[in-house]
Amino acid sequence: MNPVNAIKAIQEKNKSMLCVGLDLDQKRLPQDYATTIKGWYDFAIGIIEATKDIVCAYKPNLAFFEERGPEGVSLLEKIIQRIPDDIIVIADGKRGDIGNTAAHYARASFERLKADWVTINPYMGYDSIRPFLDHQGKGAFILCLTSNPGSRDFQLMHVVNKPIYMYVAEKVAYWNKEDNLGLVVGATHPEQLAEIRKVVGDMPILIPGVGAQGGDLEKAVIAGTDHFKHPAIINVSRSVLYASSESNFAEAARNEVVKLNGIINSLRESETEKKEE
Amino acid sequence: MNPVNAIKAIQEKNKSMLCVGLDLDQKRLPQDYATTIKGWYDFAIGIIEATKDIVCAYKPNLAFFEERGPEGVSLLEKIIQRIPDDIIVIADGKRGDIGNTAAHYARASFERLKADWVTINPYMGYDSIRPFLDHQGKGAFILCLTSNPGSRDFQLMHVVNKPIYMYVAEKVAYWNKEDNLGLVVGATHPEQLAEIRKVVGDMPILIPGVGAQGGDLEKAVIAGTDHFKHPAIINVSRSVLYASSESNFAEAARNEVVKLNGIINSLRESETEKKEE
Repeated sequence: MNPVNAIKAIQEKNKSMLCVGLDLDQKRLPQDYATTIKGWYDFAIGIIEATKDIVCAYKPNLAFFEERGPEGVSLLEKIIQRIPDDIIVIADGKRGDIGNTAAHYARASFERLKADWVTINPYMGYDSIRPFLDHQGKGAFILCLTSNPGSRDFQLMHVVNKPIYMYVAEKVAYWNKEDNLGLVVGATHPEQLAEIRKVVGDMPILIPGVGAQGGDLEKAVIAGTDHFKHPAIINVSRSVLYASSESNFAEAARNEVVKLNGIINSLRESETEKKEE
Repeated sequence: MNPVNAIKAIQEKNKSMLCVGLDLDQKRLPQDYATTIKGWYDFAIGIIEATKDIVCAYKPNLAFFEERGPEGVSLLEKIIQRIPDDIIVIADGKRGDIGNTAAHYARASFERLKADWVTINPYMGYDSIRPFLDHQGKGAFILCLTSNPGSRDFQLMHVVNKPIYMYVAEKVAYWNKEDNLGLVVGATHPEQLAEIRKVVGDMPILIPGVGAQGGDLEKAVIAGTDHFKHPAIINVSRSVLYASSESNFAEAARNEVVKLNGIINSLRESETEKKEE
């Protein structure tokens, strides 16, 4: 299946635009799960089992697993095996290297980890992205305007009359011949998110930065989808994973996802009513 | 020791500005070494043993190891253990993520892999770089102007009257309070390399792109060091690793390094003579 249609299908099935970021952080995990690899595995499976019918994607950030060396990478492979096939797995590595090397990263992400989508840094240009597009049924979200304070250092600089992130958005839209590219735009920039959505057609936008980073959920949804006309994925990590630091963490995570889905789905209904009026 | 002084010390000791990129590629390795993890290990150790007294650094590109999953990461840890302590290990991962996550990448590189330097992508700005600078004795090369064709897509765009890569160079020079930052500038852009050298003081520049990618060695050395006044590291990967596809690969690799050192050291002598005239 085309990777964008796969996103749309699971969003429809699970009535959810939410992605849960699997950022397993030793300092934040419930005490009984924090130290051993088995503890991490049980925690991740607890989160997945409690939320797999109400999310559209999981996004493991590779940094948290790499920090634990080969065991961490092996753990990540095992966790991904437990994610149902129709739920999108986004390997969030923000890789980017010259073409010859990027081909190896693409195989690491899609063939070894069996991710469906990856995140890529655009700074090195087209040949660093191209090898990811040769994998049938797989897709790549390109960093456009990120959610962090450092996004101001280079991404917001103006080239002639447009910021750099808009050139990234336009180039990625141009490169998107096979309908397998998307963008990463942080919820912390809602106005820019709306502008970007206007120039990229039906490309999916992955939106981190609500929750711990302070982005507004409703604004992000409206801007990122242009009032539910286009696909977007809202990522939440810490606010779901660490909703409770006790043994009821899975139930607390589910409650948080249910709450966020509720907000988004009410918003969709009120937008639909507006259109019908 | 300060990480820049560590580079200068080993360059002086081994009379070499060369870094060998450990890009182990199944398709390029001698047949007897290509398929098993043990073969990869023996090949890498063969290269290291044959060159460790005539290079200043080794630079494993993480993509090649990640492609082999947990076993590949474990292999990389074992290879790094066999590199003598005073030779610089550059973990070439080109990572870059929000501050909270970058701290995990920094620990993965410096504490797990025990690298001395890393490479980082600047697109996400200062908070994506900052956590790498908190590690005593370690350093970070920031991508400035890369050697690949895609470097034209964004890095060469002009903001007011300067290309983006010059803003990266200037910002990194400004952020370099602890003398633990450097830049990556491709040998395929010798004129720009000379310009960048002029604005970054004594920061080390890591220069890939000679050899297989077509950069001119002598121009890169003169521009990157400003006539041997500042530190630079010249990376060579494929032309050394795969100098022979037979069982004499280690000897052939050494011969190639000796040849390249000879070119650079003759150039240094003729520059010194010029100054004395």
